[in-house]
Amino acid sequence: MSNIKPKDSIEFIKMIQRFSRTAKKIYLPGVSIDTVIFSFQSQRLRILLVRYNEISRFGLPGGFIKKNESLDLAARRILNERTGLENVPLEQYYTSGSVDRSQKDVVIEAMKNLKGQLPPGNWFEQRFISVCYYALIDETKVILRNEPIISEAMWIDSNKLPKLLYDHKAIIHKALDRLKLDLDQNLARFNIMNETFTMGELQKLYEAIYQKTFDRTNFQRRMLSMNILERLQKKNTGKAYKSPFLYRFIQ
Amino acid sequence: MSNIKPKDSIEFIKMIQRFSRTAKKIYLPGVSIDTVIFSFQSQRLRILLVRYNEISRFGLPGGFIKKNESLDLAARRILNERTGLENVPLEQYYTSGSVDRSQKDVVIEAMKNLKGQLPPGNWFEQRFISVCYYALIDETKVILRNEPIISEAMWIDSNKLPKLLYDHKAIIHKALDRLKLDLDQNLARFNIMNETFTMGELQKLYEAIYQKTFDRTNFQRRMLSMNILERLQKKNTGKAYKSPFLYRFIQ
Repeated sequence: MSNIKPKDSIEFIKMIQRFSRTAKKIYLPGVSIDTVIFSFQSQRLRILLVRYNEISRFGLPGGFIKKNESLDLAARRILNERTGLENVPLEQYYTSGSVDRSQKDVVIEAMKNLKGQLPPGNWFEQRFISVCYYALIDETKVILRNEPIISEAMWIDSNKLPKLLYDHKAIIHKALDRLKLDLDQNLARFNIMNETFTMGELQKLYEAIYQKTFDRTNFQRRMLSMNILERLQKKNTGKAYKSPFLYRFIQ
Repeated sequence: MSNIKPKDSIEFIKMIQRFSRTAKKIYLPGVSIDTVIFSFQSQRLRILLVRYNEISRFGLPGGFIKKNESLDLAARRILNERTGLENVPLEQYYTSGSVDRSQKDVVIEAMKNLKGQLPPGNWFEQRFISVCYYALIDETKVILRNEPIISEAMWIDSNKLPKLLYDHKAIIHKALDRLKLDLDQNLARFNIMNETFTMGELQKLYEAIYQKTFDRTNFQRRMLSMNILERLQKKNTGKAYKSPFLYRFIQ
């Protein structure tokens, strides 16, 4: 990106010019949306990222709000356009609004390099605040749609995040903080456990999100004290006495 | 407001024109900030409202973000300008962004009545999304500053809210939801209990916020299970056996 070649750079300038003209007519100025989609898979917390091929960079699935569209609807549309996901129970949790959150980025840097060739006041030079949404979903129940020419959506291990656009890393950390605070309350609603599950499986989810191990006895006591779990009777088979108890969420 | 008299209406038009010219230079377009300040006083939950005298209406302390100001700093400045409050630990919790949140309001209605006399594209006709902050403070520790000509800040019982501007009532309900979710976690940080307090006093706070009564034994058990309270030894006086235990937050 910082070493844009002459031909690339002409294409890039055209792209920015074209998008800026359209964007000013369609979108609210100065506001964007970013979505942080978590998945718990193979005992790991993963995050849905988009690789923007035009600029060779990863970022959160994000976009802009149409002038006649609510924030909530815009978030659903943007997530769908970028990744193909539908009906994700998005939770708005934060709006990122420091002055320089987008000003030190590679995209802006590239634009500065092209100064004089870009029309003044192009869309991306604005200061943007970004309204952020998060969700925790079961990635095995969804299919990602990729448009390889523009962008590719993919699940990345939360411990192995690549360099990200703008302040997207900070936005992810904020989402993780909120997820921890809301986990007890939203556990059943997230719909990421099987219909029945063992206490050990539930503990793995908490450990992936909190990034630490919990004492088994204390964890069980805390979970049971919330009165959201129902313990199932073991079936009368010869092996049952050895198998762990199964739980499900109280309806 | 809807029955603005000729003289008032001329003043009102001038005010809008003047403010619109300045606002476009100073503030980010399309974004506002609102603050919901709760206080627990005389066993009641109260909310800090501002009476905007120019339009004879109550609303939350709110305003606009300067072009070179972070959201967090803007929230502090606005709260200070409207009410005199300083150093309030504001927590950003929500951004209100439905399309019609400000379109059905009395202010907008009045502007429609003045149509033709107002310049097109005046500041208040924009669609605004509003970034919302809340706090829970001890109102006895602060002094409100009033500027009676423009606006007056005052504490109002949360059960006796007057008609409010825009979607401020919904914004307050959202803040109350967030306060409930975060109360356990933030209890010590809010700094609203005396240094030592009885379990009964703590229960009154929870009951005011949840707007319901709790069973005394269950409440005590829940509070103690959080491991944030330290029970003080009773002093060896003749009456001590009758007095309730005192608690304080574990440092």
